[in-house]
Amino acid sequence: MFSHESLKDLCKATFLKIGCSEDHAELATDVLLSADLRGIDSHGVVRLPGYVRLWEVGRINTDPDIKIVHETPSTASVDVDKGLGLIVAPLVMKMAIEKAKAVGSGWISVKNSSHFGIAGYHAMMALEHDMVGIAMTNASPHVAPTFGAERLLGTNPIAVAIPADKEPPFVADFATTPVAYGKIVGMQRKGEALPVGWVQDATGKQTTDAFATHEGGALLPLGSDREHGSHKGFCLGAIVDIFCAVLSGANYGPWVPPFPAYLPLPETSVGEGIGHFFGAFRIDAFRPAEEFKSHMDTWIRRFRAAKPAEGHDRVVIPGDPEREMIEKRKREGISLMDSVVEELKELAEKYELDFPQQR
Amino acid sequence: MFSHESLKDLCKATFLKIGCSEDHAELATDVLLSADLRGIDSHGVVRLPGYVRLWEVGRINTDPDIKIVHETPSTASVDVDKGLGLIVAPLVMKMAIEKAKAVGSGWISVKNSSHFGIAGYHAMMALEHDMVGIAMTNASPHVAPTFGAERLLGTNPIAVAIPADKEPPFVADFATTPVAYGKIVGMQRKGEALPVGWVQDATGKQTTDAFATHEGGALLPLGSDREHGSHKGFCLGAIVDIFCAVLSGANYGPWVPPFPAYLPLPETSVGEGIGHFFGAFRIDAFRPAEEFKSHMDTWIRRFRAAKPAEGHDRVVIPGDPEREMIEKRKREGISLMDSVVEELKELAEKYELDFPQQR
Repeated sequence: MFSHESLKDLCKATFLKIGCSEDHAELATDVLLSADLRGIDSHGVVRLPGYVRLWEVGRINTDPDIKIVHETPSTASVDVDKGLGLIVAPLVMKMAIEKAKAVGSGWISVKNSSHFGIAGYHAMMALEHDMVGIAMTNASPHVAPTFGAERLLGTNPIAVAIPADKEPPFVADFATTPVAYGKIVGMQRKGEALPVGWVQDATGKQTTDAFATHEGGALLPLGSDREHGSHKGFCLGAIVDIFCAVLSGANYGPWVPPFPAYLPLPETSVGEGIGHFFGAFRIDAFRPAEEFKSHMDTWIRRFRAAKPAEGHDRVVIPGDPEREMIEKRKREGISLMDSVVEELKELAEKYELDFPQQR
Repeated sequence: MFSHESLKDLCKATFLKIGCSEDHAELATDVLLSADLRGIDSHGVVRLPGYVRLWEVGRINTDPDIKIVHETPSTASVDVDKGLGLIVAPLVMKMAIEKAKAVGSGWISVKNSSHFGIAGYHAMMALEHDMVGIAMTNASPHVAPTFGAERLLGTNPIAVAIPADKEPPFVADFATTPVAYGKIVGMQRKGEALPVGWVQDATGKQTTDAFATHEGGALLPLGSDREHGSHKGFCLGAIVDIFCAVLSGANYGPWVPPFPAYLPLPETSVGEGIGHFFGAFRIDAFRPAEEFKSHMDTWIRRFRAAKPAEGHDRVVIPGDPEREMIEKRKREGISLMDSVVEELKELAEKYELDFPQQR
């Protein structure tokens, strides 16, 4: 078990070592740790060695020159110069927020980027401005389209953060697949079979084999199969891909570069790096913010008070489980798998960093 | 079998009879028939008698005064004065397109409206302007949130239309549930059992009983159950509800008024009518339109060329099946169920309208 402060120190020291400025190292650390605190372990410090390896092979630039390629009062496309997604994403989200201040809403499509951590972090930046925040990213291909037997889409998450008044904000942050890829990796480690409806094999048939994705298989889109609406999950993943990459000039579909630095880049490319899409709009660009937020309280309370299904104790409002996890982990610390601790230790040794005490 | 022109005549005559202007009657007819032509039978002429009954009981105003309640350069909230959704939705979508022309994007939340037909029609209006179009609506509650045993959300559809160059446009238009409610009604008529994963009973347990929704049951969100990501479908339905209604001042959640005029309005209300949300953004607010559209061709062709799963012959691009249906129905005509024909005949008699010849 590690305190989140001690992991913060390790992350920040690492980002400084690979050439990030003080501000950028702080920002990247905040984004990364927010995943661990919120319980989205697959996107937290577990990825730190991976980011460093991408920098080692020259796929990440830790001193990026962020350039607006084109803009209108409410939109922009931005080239983030191979920057670390963890850093450039919140910087671009700030630009979207500034546009929303000026003309009601701001929408920015980003190219030439890399993995940006959890989408929810960036979307939530809008909340303190009484704005709704939206963040999406495309990702390397793990998902087959409905009726397809090829991996052509990433798990392409969508995050939407909406402020309330007395109630905590509504924060949705989800992959457009039945489960995130990290969950399948967890089942592989435990040697467990998957539920039907998560993955398919190389021929496109559903399977419970947790290793099917290693043998030409693929994740299924949200909905799992055509009868249960997987074509809608495919639509969602496709829309994220198009907004993030076709709009900005990044790579899309099967051309999206992989996260692991040991994997070769696709032989051809259709754009630069991976893509993101950010949106922010002012509540009071539609309606007085106090009025809206009071109705959001009513909305949240009505859903929270819903009669529960048998065997369940309550309807969960998007954002609730993560808030509970933050409290718990700030209090009790963050537990990491042994293999992750080993990898972080190696990283600390290689880059001569203090390794935090476990408690 | 009816020619779509003959059904057009019937619809237009009906809308004129209930007080629509020539232009509005033409527009409502175009929206309604577009559903029949696209094969979305649940949203076409089958609903004509329902719209008339809403007018008869005074829940629809056929001469609405559409007012902007609040606006910024890129956003607005609009009160459509109890107008017919079929008419006011395309008029408001035009306003979003005008905003996009001026400042790159336009986003409008609408209150005091009624059923607007298929979301895809309104989203597709953006295409001829080289814009991306987005349309959503909330709807009367048929869907239970994950872990809940109450109907609190509509099937709340999302439509996104994206232009391409040589390829036809990408048009996604889908309810945020495994299936649209119309499909369940169809199974009821045939006396068939439903697949597991579409509906739950009054206790919140999944059931194959097609009539479960008549006895306190509910539709499930896209994803079907928690293990397969129904909380993500719940998030989507909730986001649509909030963007359409909490932002505009319409009714949301269980307070959304029903479509059938014989059902009483909810005893309390939290806003006015039902709500919609429209968005439009110029492609060239991000990137030269020709460049984008050529990459959309690449995107579409790559997905269309994907290796098919065993037992299937191809990956379907969103919009393809509807385009094929339009060709077929323009050629062969539109077939209506006997019960629908009877209802339309009664309507024609009551309002002294010519009834089209079947062929």
